[in-house]
Amino acid sequence: MKKNVIAGQSGGPTAVINASLYGVVCEALKHKDSFGTVYGMVNGIEGFLNGQAMDMAPLQASGELELIRTTPGSYLGSCRYKLPEDLDDPVYQELFSQFAEYGIGYFFYIGGNDSMDTVSKLSRYARLVKSEIRFIGIPKTIDNDLVLTDHTPGFGSAARYVATTVREIALDAAVYDNKKSVTIVEIMGRHAGWLTAASVLARKFEGDNPLLIYLPETPFDPDTFLQDVQSSLDKAANLVVCISEGIHDGNGKFICELASDVGVDTFGHKMLTGSGKYLENLVKDRLGVKVRSVELNVSQRCSSSMLSGTDLAEAAASGAYGIKCALDGETGKMVALKRIPGDDYQVAYGTEDVTLICNREKEVPAEWITGNGSDIGPGFISYARPLIQGDVKVPMEDGLPKFAYRKSMLPKK
Amino acid sequence: MKKNVIAGQSGGPTAVINASLYGVVCEALKHKDSFGTVYGMVNGIEGFLNGQAMDMAPLQASGELELIRTTPGSYLGSCRYKLPEDLDDPVYQELFSQFAEYGIGYFFYIGGNDSMDTVSKLSRYARLVKSEIRFIGIPKTIDNDLVLTDHTPGFGSAARYVATTVREIALDAAVYDNKKSVTIVEIMGRHAGWLTAASVLARKFEGDNPLLIYLPETPFDPDTFLQDVQSSLDKAANLVVCISEGIHDGNGKFICELASDVGVDTFGHKMLTGSGKYLENLVKDRLGVKVRSVELNVSQRCSSSMLSGTDLAEAAASGAYGIKCALDGETGKMVALKRIPGDDYQVAYGTEDVTLICNREKEVPAEWITGNGSDIGPGFISYARPLIQGDVKVPMEDGLPKFAYRKSMLPKK
Repeated sequence: MKKNVIAGQSGGPTAVINASLYGVVCEALKHKDSFGTVYGMVNGIEGFLNGQAMDMAPLQASGELELIRTTPGSYLGSCRYKLPEDLDDPVYQELFSQFAEYGIGYFFYIGGNDSMDTVSKLSRYARLVKSEIRFIGIPKTIDNDLVLTDHTPGFGSAARYVATTVREIALDAAVYDNKKSVTIVEIMGRHAGWLTAASVLARKFEGDNPLLIYLPETPFDPDTFLQDVQSSLDKAANLVVCISEGIHDGNGKFICELASDVGVDTFGHKMLTGSGKYLENLVKDRLGVKVRSVELNVSQRCSSSMLSGTDLAEAAASGAYGIKCALDGETGKMVALKRIPGDDYQVAYGTEDVTLICNREKEVPAEWITGNGSDIGPGFISYARPLIQGDVKVPMEDGLPKFAYRKSMLPKK
Repeated sequence: MKKNVIAGQSGGPTAVINASLYGVVCEALKHKDSFGTVYGMVNGIEGFLNGQAMDMAPLQASGELELIRTTPGSYLGSCRYKLPEDLDDPVYQELFSQFAEYGIGYFFYIGGNDSMDTVSKLSRYARLVKSEIRFIGIPKTIDNDLVLTDHTPGFGSAARYVATTVREIALDAAVYDNKKSVTIVEIMGRHAGWLTAASVLARKFEGDNPLLIYLPETPFDPDTFLQDVQSSLDKAANLVVCISEGIHDGNGKFICELASDVGVDTFGHKMLTGSGKYLENLVKDRLGVKVRSVELNVSQRCSSSMLSGTDLAEAAASGAYGIKCALDGETGKMVALKRIPGDDYQVAYGTEDVTLICNREKEVPAEWITGNGSDIGPGFISYARPLIQGDVKVPMEDGLPKFAYRKSMLPKK
């Protein structure tokens, strides 16, 4: 009897995590000889434990699957559920009875670090109990911090969004060019600065903004920062500075935590402010120059308006490749992208042991960080530029993007 | 001898203020029999006082003018310079000698309230000194708060950006639909809530987010707000609330000012936080539910990714219409848009006395605000929906939007 397929999404959403789901489901539905039902698990492994799963085939027939491809966010819903380290924990037995009940032979999990940890544990438990279920991870994260893959689906679109938005903010900042001003843009990335580094792509010409870029890979010193700002203002009247939310002092303290040493809000809580807001106040206080901060916030991971065609295609291809690997008998693996050397950008797909990937983080290489930690060099630009190429036509309806909604999200008829 | 034309931009930029400049310049260049040189004033009236002006004709020949059309921000730079009330002030004489020096016969100023004040004063001074220079205002503001015009160029694109982004944020918020959460989105608009009201367009079906929308047109009571949030959470697990930055208590105090009663930051400054951040803390403190706030910030006025085709075309047409009015001998007028009644959206262009427009603000009509000030009704939707229609293809280069830069912004060769 044919085994069934189940695919889930986990962790924070991206603009193309649904394209990976599309890839998995479309490819699985092509192999009717090999697979039975193709399920989606709702709200990840946590929802599945509560019996939440849906048959995906009707979505292809109705055309909804095509719409899912360009819908940001996690169509199936997500979870942040960490499986216990101890494989003797009863939750594993519970999950595997659930797999048995659904006749699952193939399990696909689209996510980042933590999701790969789930794939690792499930595949190890499967080996332990001699289950034949195959577990495959599909990479997804705007943070681009997974090891053993050239980059991760989700990064290209987020990078394109960041670079575009920073270029637009630089234009906005240049409007009053007879007055000095500083604009601080805070970009997502707690531990790795890939996305912040992408702001360098906004630079159109020598001396164009952003003139300063700070990543968490380099310890951040507020005094050096102030000197950098001061000397940049001598060169450009309207300075745009990009910082990672995760910049820190090198001694385990995030810059955004410095504010809470003193500040207390109306409710008596410690003032929780972003790094950008903290630095805005610092610049105002020390340099007395006009300054504002802008937090790019969730649009970095959910904007459909700056989808990278390359990223979208790779996200779908990663999902489809996962199906092929599972058919070939692989398990405990993550789909990985390998860049083929040459003048034209090209990637090949392969797999890597998921246990070597989970719980590790890939940082921006030190040699790509220049200007004593205040700039990004040409190495990164050559790496990132191909990832933001290609326009995507998102279906529109009544002037707005048309997205796919899971039935359970819609009002009862 | 033919008189010359000068066009300037003033106040905050929008995504289509350059399309209006494009409209003025293109139309002026068509009338070579009537006009001499077509100048752009750099950094508005303030820059012009310092002799900053540029010949615009070469930009058409080079193709740059076409690029200016879809470039956000003020290509010519802007200023926030308020002319003195007293028409005897020497600055008027100074300006008019500058006009004489440049042979100006026609003056176009693209801007909002304050810019119309400039047009009003200059045209009144001209009458006083019997100058024949004609002064025409071209409306521009994302705030949509100018009176005597159906709407303002700039609003449609900003509204489309807001509605799209709120729809995407709602998807992002729905990802963990097994947990309750509140997302507060802060939208621009200090005194008028037009742009915040546009968030209602994000709603795709009955019961879809944003479930609550608060404008500055209605006094805001934090306790009623908390009750609204609580009862909405019974209906939707993941609530999205949209608020204007300018919501206030009805007694002259902005909600964002409530925080600064107590909070003091690291530098001893009163804590300056947005209304969204204040309400985030309030919900956390009182309702104990998972909550975050998102400030849409400057992208509302400078994003080129959600340009409304209708808005872009009307911005250019307003500029072109201004030229025709000046040729017809009008002065002291602002171009105004009139909606032609009927099933299909159509506008006609006319002019209104600029002195009746400046220093006034148009609010969202009370009958369009529903739910005791917590929602927006169908009247607004019918009004706003046509303004966000139509896609625009922004030229791309190396994966990013290609924008026009004034020569003085580029590095010296």
